[in-house]
Amino acid sequence: MNDTPPRTMSAGECWQALREHEFGRLAYRLLGEVHITPINYVVDGERLLFRTAQGNKLLSVVMHGPVALEIDELGVEEAWSVVARGSARVLEGADAGRSEQLPLRPWVGGEKETVVRIDPEEVTGRRFRLSKPWEHMMPTS
Amino acid sequence: MNDTPPRTMSAGECWQALREHEFGRLAYRLLGEVHITPINYVVDGERLLFRTAQGNKLLSVVMHGPVALEIDELGVEEAWSVVARGSARVLEGADAGRSEQLPLRPWVGGEKETVVRIDPEEVTGRRFRLSKPWEHMMPTS
Repeated sequence: MNDTPPRTMSAGECWQALREHEFGRLAYRLLGEVHITPINYVVDGERLLFRTAQGNKLLSVVMHGPVALEIDELGVEEAWSVVARGSARVLEGADAGRSEQLPLRPWVGGEKETVVRIDPEEVTGRRFRLSKPWEHMMPTS
Repeated sequence: MNDTPPRTMSAGECWQALREHEFGRLAYRLLGEVHITPINYVVDGERLLFRTAQGNKLLSVVMHGPVALEIDELGVEEAWSVVARGSARVLEGADAGRSEQLPLRPWVGGEKETVVRIDPEEVTGRRFRLSKPWEHMMPTS
């Protein structure tokens, strides 16, 4: 049993992790339910952008506002997780045009022409020391 | 650009993936906000169990009900994601005692003595063919 409490990551560490990654999960509300979906995102200053097609996900983030984007990494001895919570909105006009310059592409096929921006109100991260019992379950490659 | 649409995973494939993994992310609502937190879970029949300490996460799942647990895997050419959505409740008495027999331990230290059960109302999964442009960003080890 490992009794080391999680360590809080600094805002700088959190943003660095967000910049170094591009694959995360977006949680949002829809009709009183909670949903999660994997997304490909990019950091633009202190904002997060992703592309989507018209559909559930897009409608939700625009109509219901609060979202949370999570990234994490699970190692043998340590894991970390960063969560950015805030509101989302669809980019239009010049903002959408500017986003064309960013290295942001949908990570799967299909038409995903709409760009959504998340303005994080809170970015938090934690590092966890993993308990020894889990070592044999971790990929070691 | 890869135009292959995501492929829906069968219920059997989703449950197999859930059984083969133990690390996921739990999304839940709290005071009108959406939160995500990494969790260690175990499958018990067609239910999902995890341990937690008294705190935000626990209070939320008990008081607000709807949660979503997500697992995923990102490969070089393909990625998949499975989401189980449902309600959660704290196990008590004999149910909690029975859960002691399951290979369920908190994946980080600290006191996490309460067992929460998720009864999935919906389990869905999708497989995505990844677009070539992302290959250079994928870990290849």
